[in-house]
Amino acid sequence: MTKQQLFEQIQKKRSFLCVGLDSSLDKIPKHLLKYENPILEFNKQIIDATKDLCVAYKPNTAFYECYGKKGWETLIETWKYIPQDIFSIADAKRGDIGNTSAMYAETFFNAASSEMSFDSVTVAPYMGSDSVTPFLTFKDKWVILLALTSNAGHADFQLQEIGEDKLFEKVLKTSQTWATDEQMMYVVGATRGAAFGDVRKLAPDHFLLVPGVGAQGGDLNEVCKYGLNSQCGLLINSSRGIIYASQGEDFAEKAREEALKLQKEMEQILIAAELINHR
Amino acid sequence: MTKQQLFEQIQKKRSFLCVGLDSSLDKIPKHLLKYENPILEFNKQIIDATKDLCVAYKPNTAFYECYGKKGWETLIETWKYIPQDIFSIADAKRGDIGNTSAMYAETFFNAASSEMSFDSVTVAPYMGSDSVTPFLTFKDKWVILLALTSNAGHADFQLQEIGEDKLFEKVLKTSQTWATDEQMMYVVGATRGAAFGDVRKLAPDHFLLVPGVGAQGGDLNEVCKYGLNSQCGLLINSSRGIIYASQGEDFAEKAREEALKLQKEMEQILIAAELINHR
Repeated sequence: MTKQQLFEQIQKKRSFLCVGLDSSLDKIPKHLLKYENPILEFNKQIIDATKDLCVAYKPNTAFYECYGKKGWETLIETWKYIPQDIFSIADAKRGDIGNTSAMYAETFFNAASSEMSFDSVTVAPYMGSDSVTPFLTFKDKWVILLALTSNAGHADFQLQEIGEDKLFEKVLKTSQTWATDEQMMYVVGATRGAAFGDVRKLAPDHFLLVPGVGAQGGDLNEVCKYGLNSQCGLLINSSRGIIYASQGEDFAEKAREEALKLQKEMEQILIAAELINHR
Repeated sequence: MTKQQLFEQIQKKRSFLCVGLDSSLDKIPKHLLKYENPILEFNKQIIDATKDLCVAYKPNTAFYECYGKKGWETLIETWKYIPQDIFSIADAKRGDIGNTSAMYAETFFNAASSEMSFDSVTVAPYMGSDSVTPFLTFKDKWVILLALTSNAGHADFQLQEIGEDKLFEKVLKTSQTWATDEQMMYVVGATRGAAFGDVRKLAPDHFLLVPGVGAQGGDLNEVCKYGLNSQCGLLINSSRGIIYASQGEDFAEKAREEALKLQKEMEQILIAAELINHR
């Protein structure tokens, strides 16, 4: 999917919501355990209930790998179930030496090899250029590079000062010599509200994938105040806040309610920013 | 496996060789393609041919994931085939927020969940403490944290100066507040020979996993000169140099020859360091 196509989806759906499919056997409703593949059934019902309200789905690979072969199959089937016009993110946080990152790119982008072809994959920057560039050889596919993450440990290294920059700022600067904003996005945690101003100074035009709204405590309006750009430029992820809104038989309905609340807030933000019209 | 047990294996086998199982369909001998699972057959024959010469096996997950479900099954079956007294490394370079890293730890350490229980997993440090600590809750399991990698891109961030330290030195220092040398090792690339002196100043007692000998150009004697400690403290990985020594029907035999060359060199190094006796 191109940047322009993603922006058009945002305008059409009046939403920049990404639903995180961090689906775990011990957290999904008990009545689903009777299915041959409970997590796949859960994901399908969540997708059916939210697909008109969001522009992206983001399964985190950890939640699939932990179930071995069966989990990997669930990831593949989940990818197949995501509608083609919705931006798909393999939240895998991969990265290795060049010839190995090339194999990870095959994993997430080449369906002929792995049966999956996500629109994007999250990548960790620690190993530098040749760990990232192999992902950039696929047309209309995206690298979403970790910059400033939403977890407590982000301060250990990401905020350390390298000359006049913090490490995450150095990552933002250096990585822009590898790819344009048509191929690269950045992960910036919602729990870092005011830092969005710093990020936008360095990456005014990039899309940012923003985890941490909801369960982790990030504030949507704060993020948008500093983070919105002329093509929206934000994908706001909510995982637990939506998919685990209820653990009863009404889980899909409740997930939709939570997604709808966020979509309505986002619609107002997009209108206020004159990125869409009033209806 | 404990640190002491690993050292005993090194003394017994007179080797600190790790064989990297980066096995790819387009590089294994053609005659294996007739097998139902060519890569598994390849790995089994490589293991059979080298298991008395090495103390560790390291499959890199990228080379398995890229084949989807079948690849994940191959990884599981490969793990099962690695003898229990040989240290197994899932070279996965994972790392995510706390609750997600906990799922990755299940993936690689909890066979009841994933059918695999490696002795160790490689982890990327960028996300800080809570991305690493969930891996440390498993008894006798190891985190092998990326410090100074063997690829060209290492200079982009790892060598950047934070106050008086380079980033990789900051990683070495900070991570020692999370775990001892009984639970944590570091990845230090062999292509960084002289840097082993700097690493040993900060981590004198830790085991170091050293990729980059062979195909990537690292020098064994240079690494040992600066890196050896009183319990050896080094696991030297060779992947392509061993497993692809021949692409003919004699591939296992040639792999053994390459492994034997390295083992013989390592034996001399261990004798010279008085870590083992002459035979």
